[in-house]
Amino acid sequence: MGSTFGNHFKVTTYGESHCLSVGCIVDGCPPGMALAEEDIQPQMTRRRPGQSAITTPRDEKDRVEIQSGTEFGITLGTPIGLRVMNENQRPKNYGNQTMDLYPRPSHADWTYLEKYGVKSSSGGGRSSARETIGRVAAGAIAEKYLRDAYGIEIVAFVASVGNEFLFPPTPEHPTAATNPDYLKLIETIDRNKVDKFLQVRCPDIKASLRMEKLVADFKERKDSIGGTVTCVIRNSPNGLGEPCFDKLEATLAHAMLSIPATKEFEIGSGFGGCQVPGSIHNDPFIKVPPALAGKGGLNPLVQRSRLTTKTNNSGGIQGGISNGAPIYFSVAFKPPATTVLVGVALGPA
Amino acid sequence: MGSTFGNHFKVTTYGESHCLSVGCIVDGCPPGMALAEEDIQPQMTRRRPGQSAITTPRDEKDRVEIQSGTEFGITLGTPIGLRVMNENQRPKNYGNQTMDLYPRPSHADWTYLEKYGVKSSSGGGRSSARETIGRVAAGAIAEKYLRDAYGIEIVAFVASVGNEFLFPPTPEHPTAATNPDYLKLIETIDRNKVDKFLQVRCPDIKASLRMEKLVADFKERKDSIGGTVTCVIRNSPNGLGEPCFDKLEATLAHAMLSIPATKEFEIGSGFGGCQVPGSIHNDPFIKVPPALAGKGGLNPLVQRSRLTTKTNNSGGIQGGISNGAPIYFSVAFKPPATTVLVGVALGPA
Amino acid sequence: MGSTFGNHFKVTTYGESHCLSVGCIVDGCPPGMALAEEDIQPQMTRRRPGQSAITTPRDEKDRVEIQSGTEFGITLGTPIGLRVMNENQRPKNYGNQTMDLYPRPSHADWTYLEKYGVKSSSGGGRSSARETIGRVAAGAIAEKYLRDAYGIEIVAFVASVGNEFLFPPTPEHPTAATNPDYLKLIETIDRNKVDKFLQVRCPDIKASLRMEKLVADFKERKDSIGGTVTCVIRNSPNGLGEPCFDKLEATLAHAMLSIPATKEFEIGSGFGGCQVPGSIHNDPFIKVPPALAGKGGLNPLVQRSRLTTKTNNSGGIQGGISNGAPIYFSVAFKPPATTVLVGVALGPA
Amino acid sequence: MGSTFGNHFKVTTYGESHCLSVGCIVDGCPPGMALAEEDIQPQMTRRRPGQSAITTPRDEKDRVEIQSGTEFGITLGTPIGLRVMNENQRPKNYGNQTMDLYPRPSHADWTYLEKYGVKSSSGGGRSSARETIGRVAAGAIAEKYLRDAYGIEIVAFVASVGNEFLFPPTPEHPTAATNPDYLKLIETIDRNKVDKFLQVRCPDIKASLRMEKLVADFKERKDSIGGTVTCVIRNSPNGLGEPCFDKLEATLAHAMLSIPATKEFEIGSGFGGCQVPGSIHNDPFIKVPPALAGKGGLNPLVQRSRLTTKTNNSGGIQGGISNGAPIYFSVAFKPPATTVLVGVALGPA
Repeated sequence: MGSTFGNHFKVTTYGESHCLSVGCIVDGCPPGMALAEEDIQPQMTRRRPGQSAITTPRDEKDRVEIQSGTEFGITLGTPIGLRVMNENQRPKNYGNQTMDLYPRPSHADWTYLEKYGVKSSSGGGRSSARETIGRVAAGAIAEKYLRDAYGIEIVAFVASVGNEFLFPPTPEHPTAATNPDYLKLIETIDRNKVDKFLQVRCPDIKASLRMEKLVADFKERKDSIGGTVTCVIRNSPNGLGEPCFDKLEATLAHAMLSIPATKEFEIGSGFGGCQVPGSIHNDPFIKVPPALAGKGGLNPLVQRSRLTTKTNNSGGIQGGISNGAPIYFSVAFKPPATTVLVGVALGPA
Repeated sequence: MGSTFGNHFKVTTYGESHCLSVGCIVDGCPPGMALAEEDIQPQMTRRRPGQSAITTPRDEKDRVEIQSGTEFGITLGTPIGLRVMNENQRPKNYGNQTMDLYPRPSHADWTYLEKYGVKSSSGGGRSSARETIGRVAAGAIAEKYLRDAYGIEIVAFVASVGNEFLFPPTPEHPTAATNPDYLKLIETIDRNKVDKFLQVRCPDIKASLRMEKLVADFKERKDSIGGTVTCVIRNSPNGLGEPCFDKLEATLAHAMLSIPATKEFEIGSGFGGCQVPGSIHNDPFIKVPPALAGKGGLNPLVQRSRLTTKTNNSGGIQGGISNGAPIYFSVAFKPPATTVLVGVALGPA
Repeated sequence: MGSTFGNHFKVTTYGESHCLSVGCIVDGCPPGMALAEEDIQPQMTRRRPGQSAITTPRDEKDRVEIQSGTEFGITLGTPIGLRVMNENQRPKNYGNQTMDLYPRPSHADWTYLEKYGVKSSSGGGRSSARETIGRVAAGAIAEKYLRDAYGIEIVAFVASVGNEFLFPPTPEHPTAATNPDYLKLIETIDRNKVDKFLQVRCPDIKASLRMEKLVADFKERKDSIGGTVTCVIRNSPNGLGEPCFDKLEATLAHAMLSIPATKEFEIGSGFGGCQVPGSIHNDPFIKVPPALAGKGGLNPLVQRSRLTTKTNNSGGIQGGISNGAPIYFSVAFKPPATTVLVGVALGPA
Repeated sequence: MGSTFGNHFKVTTYGESHCLSVGCIVDGCPPGMALAEEDIQPQMTRRRPGQSAITTPRDEKDRVEIQSGTEFGITLGTPIGLRVMNENQRPKNYGNQTMDLYPRPSHADWTYLEKYGVKSSSGGGRSSARETIGRVAAGAIAEKYLRDAYGIEIVAFVASVGNEFLFPPTPEHPTAATNPDYLKLIETIDRNKVDKFLQVRCPDIKASLRMEKLVADFKERKDSIGGTVTCVIRNSPNGLGEPCFDKLEATLAHAMLSIPATKEFEIGSGFGGCQVPGSIHNDPFIKVPPALAGKGGLNPLVQRSRLTTKTNNSGGIQGGISNGAPIYFSVAFKPPATTVLVGVALGPA
C-alpha cells in the first residue's frame, strides 16, 4: 500500500529494482496540454545517479515510454501510463551474498522482511531509489502543466553537504531565511544556473568546490556523508493549502519525507527560525510592487495576491495557505548507507 | 476541507474561536475499551495555555463531553462525538480593532481572507490554536487504546527554547542522536517527570531554568521566541508504515506540520544527521536482549522484533517502516506572532 | 469506520439511538452563504417517522443546533458542526428483552455483535434510522447551496408501495422511462406537490390512495411492505462525474445503498431498460431549445449544455458524466423488519 | 480522475482504445502468493467480446504481462503492474467519420467532449469497454487470493436477456430470492457449469436457448437488447462491510455501476423484495449445521458465523455487514448502443 499520492493530480507508482519495468499512472492531468516523451526524458536523465561533468548526454538509459493518455501529442484528460524498462531484470540468485546472511544496517532489508515475510532480491523492495523513477516522470508532467498554465517556476539546489553550507548558520542568522542575500537567491535562482554545477548542483562556485572536496574525502576513506536540498516554488497562486490537517507545509512535508533517506523537512525559516525573536521573525505585509503584480500569471482566473511580505520567514505559507510569496523549503538526507562497510556489529549487544 | 486525518483511526475536527463549541468525531476506535470523560479531561487541562506552577488543578474550563460511541463507559466501535463549549461564543463586533484595519503579520488573517473571501471574528478561522482541542481529545483516546492494548508509551518534552538546548549540537555530536546520554533519555523519560517542570516541560532542572529565564527576558521586552519539542514512542510493534508515499516518518511529518506555528520536523538524527559520517550514522543490528524482548507487549498477536539496533539514528524507522526501536522525532515552533507589536510595516516597500 | 462521505462536500456523522446526541460535521461548504437553523429544521421535521395529516407543525422534536462554521448567519468556509439531542438518552437496562435473548431477524443485531463483540442497547448501533439525522441535516445544507448557486432542484417522491405503482411496468413500457407521461412528471414535479400527499408522498391522488390502503391493510395484520422512491435532480451542470470508477451513477448508488433498508438502485431506465430494444433505448441528441438554454443557471461560470436528449433513458448521465438533462434514479426499500412478529425460527433448521 | 478503486486492495487502471497499452497497478496484494501470467490470462480470454462455441482456445490476443510485484512467481507485497498491448494503437485519422460529425447517441462522446474539451479517437475515451481489461486482470488476482486464503468462491451468470428470465418474476415470487430453487442455484452454481453455455453463460439449457434466440432476432434486425447478470460470493467471512456510508452493498453497488452500460444494481431480494410482505421477507436465524460450519475456511483466524439464516432475502448482508450466508447481487445492462443505427435525430426537437 501507500503507492498513491495526490488529490487532484494523483500519482500511483509501481516497480522495484529487478522486475521487468518501473513506472506510474498519472490520473488528473488536465486535457489539452502538449506532452511527449521529450518533455519527460530530461528529468529522467537528470535523475540518474553517478553523473559528472563527463557524463555523455547521449546516455540512452531509463527511456520513458508513454502508454496512454495522449493522442497526437496532446493530453486527453485520461490517466497517463508511464513505463521505464529495468536493465537488470533478473532477480539475483539467492547465493553467497552479504544481504542474504544478515540484513544490511540502516537499509530496509530487515523491516521489509518483518512486514512482508518475503525478501526481495533488492532487500528492501520498494525502498530502492529506483522507485523514484515513477515520481520523477510524474513530476516532470506536473511541472510542465504548472509552468504552461500558471507560469510557476520550481528550482531545487544543494544547500549543504556535511558541515559545508551555502549559507552557514551564524549567531546573527541562525536561519538563512533572515539573510537578505539568501532571500535574493530564493527569488532569482533558476535551474540552468544549478545545472552548471553538475558535481553537486550547488549554485555557488566556492561552496560547490568545498562540497565536492568533502564528498571526495569521504569516498576515499570508504565512508559517506549526507546533505540538504532546498527547493523554491515561485509564482504560486495564493490560496493553496487547506486549513487544519492539510496545511500546504504538511502535505509538502508528507511528500518530501516519503523520498528515501530523508530525515528532516523545514519550511521557510525552519529549525533556525525558532531561534529568531518574534519581532524579527514576523513578516510585515507590503503592497505587491506594481512591477511584480501578477508577474508570470498566465491564467486570468488565478488569484494573484495584492499584498506580499517584506521578509519571508513564513516561506510563502501562512495558516497553512499560500500567500503568493515564494514558497521554499529544505530537506535533509542522511549519509548513504550502502557505501559504508556493513554488518560488523550483528550479534548480542 | 482538510478537517479529517487518519485511516484506521480517523479524526474529524470542527470549530473556531468564537462559535458555540469545538470538538471532533473519532471514527475507528475499537469496541470494548473503557472510556469516560475522565480519561480525556487531563489532556484537555494540560493543553490549556498560560499554565504555571500555581495553576489550580480545579480549573473547570474546557470540559469535554462525550456525545456518542460509548454505553456504560465502554466503547461500541461506533464514532465517538466529542464537544467542548467555547466560553467566548459571541463573535466580536467588527469595530475599531487592529486586525480589522489590516491583516496581522505572520497570522492567517490575510490568507484566509484571500482564500475564503470572508473574515471570521478570529481572523484566521481554523488556524486558531483552539482548533487543536479536538485533536488533543482524539489523541487522548488514541493514546489510551495504544497503551491498554499494546503497552505503547508516548512522551513529549521541550528540547530547546531559542538557543537554549537540552542537548546543544556540538562538533562531536551535530545531532543529539549520536549522544548516548540522549539515547538513554529517549529510552527512559516518562510524562510524570516532564510534568514536574511545568513552566517549560523540559525534564532537566538546569536546562529548564535557562529556558524559563530566556522566555521571561523576551516577555519583558514584549518580544517572543520559539522552540522545539521532542516526542518519543516506545514499545511500538514493528511493521508500521507503508513503503513509498506513506512511510511512517512521512505521515508523522504530515500530522506534526499541521499543528499551528510549526516550521520543521525531523525523525531520528534529523538535520544534524546529515553531518554525521555514514560509518557512524549506520545503526548496526543486534539481537534484542532477552530481558527486553516483547517488553510491554500485551497483545500476543502483535509482532515484536527479534533484532534491534545498537544505535538509533534511524529513529526507529527504516525504509519507512517501524523496526521496533523507540520512534522519536522533533518539531520546531516559530516564535508566537501575537505577543509582538504588529502592523508597523504595512505600506509600500 | 465508514462514517464519512464525499470529496468536495464531506459529511461525517456520529451517534446512535440512545447516546447523548446525534449529528455531523460538514466540511467543504463554501463560504459566504446565508445559513441558519431555520434552513435545516424543515428537513429534520420532514424526516421524522410516524407523520400524518394530523401531525402538528409545532412539533418541537429533533431541533438542530449549529455548533460552528457560521458567524452572523453566514458560512465561513470552515466545518459546520450540527447536533440534535436524543430524547431517550439512557441506554436500556439489559433485562428481559427480546433482542437480548436472540438477534432480531433481518436487523443488524447479529452482524454488529459478530463484528464488534459488543451489543449496543439499540442492537445494531449505527444501523438505526436515527443515524440518518446527520445525513438529512447535511443534505439540507447541500441542497440550499446547490439551489442558491446553481438553481439546482431536487425532488423525491414515492413511486411504488408493494405492487401498487405510480407508473406500473407494462409490456409496452417495461420501464416508466419510455413513457412520455413519466418524463413529463420528472421534468415538472416539485416538492410542494409531493408534500401535499403527506401519508405516502406519492404525487398522484389515485395512486396515493391505493398505496395508503395497502399500507393500512398490512398494518392491520401486523405485517409490513416495502416500496420505491424516485428522485430527480434538475438544472445540473453537465460534466459532473468521473470516468471509470467514480461515474456519477456509481457514486449515487453508493450513497443511496448506504441508507438503511435499501435493496436496489436504478439510474434512468434502470432494470426495465434492459428489456427495451436499443433502437428505442438510445437517446437521440437535439439542440437545447433556446427557451430552456441555461434555465435556472445562476452562476455564469457553470457550463450548460448546448445539446440535450430527446428521450432520457440515460437518466441524465452518459459515460458516467452528467449531460445536462434531468438526472433521475429510484431506490427500493425492503419491508420494515420491526413491525413484524420476530424470533420464531431460531433453532436448528 | 476516478481511476482508482479499493482500500486494502487498491486498483488503478489506465488506457483507452487506441493508445499503446492498457493495464493497471494493483496495490495491496498480500505477499507470498504464487502468481504468474497463467493465473490471470484465462479471465482476459473469457472477457474478450465476440466469443462463441467455435472460438479457438489458442487465441493469442490480450496477453497480460506482469511488470512488477513478483519474484520467482511469488508476490512480494509490492504493487503489481499489469500491461496488455493494444492491437490498434494508431488513433484514427480524423476524417469522414460518423462520430466526427456528431456525437453518437447514448455513448459518452458528447459528455467527454463537454467535460474535457478534447475528442479522443474512440469518442468517449475511458468509457470504452476496453478500459475494463485492467479491472478484469486485477479481479483475477483478487479472486485467486480470496480462494487460496479463505476458500471464497465467486461465480457470475446471465440471469436474463430482454424479457427472457432464468427465474421470471411471478405473483408468488416477485423476486426470485423467495424461490427455493433459486436459493439452491445460488448455493451450488460453479463457473464450470456457467462456461458450458458459452453463448450467453446462462446455466440452464432451456433458458439459455431462449436467450440465444432472442439475441439472434435482435441482431438480425440490426437492433440490440440488454440483460442482467447475477453474481454470488460464497464462504465469505462475516463482519465485512462498514456501518453507515460504506455498507458492503453500497460499495458493491459503487463498483458494479462503474462498469460501462450498467443501469441497475440489486442486493438479495432487490427490487422485487419491496413487493414481498415483511413476514416472508424477514430471514429467520438458524444455527449453522455442523456439516457446513467453517466449510471452505482455510484461514483459522477468519471468523465464520455460528448462525446463518433460513432464507436469504438479505443477500448475505445485514446492517451493511456480511452475515456469513452467500452474498448475491444482480446488475442490469442496457442494450448496447453501438449495434444500432445512429444519429438520425440530431436537430431541433
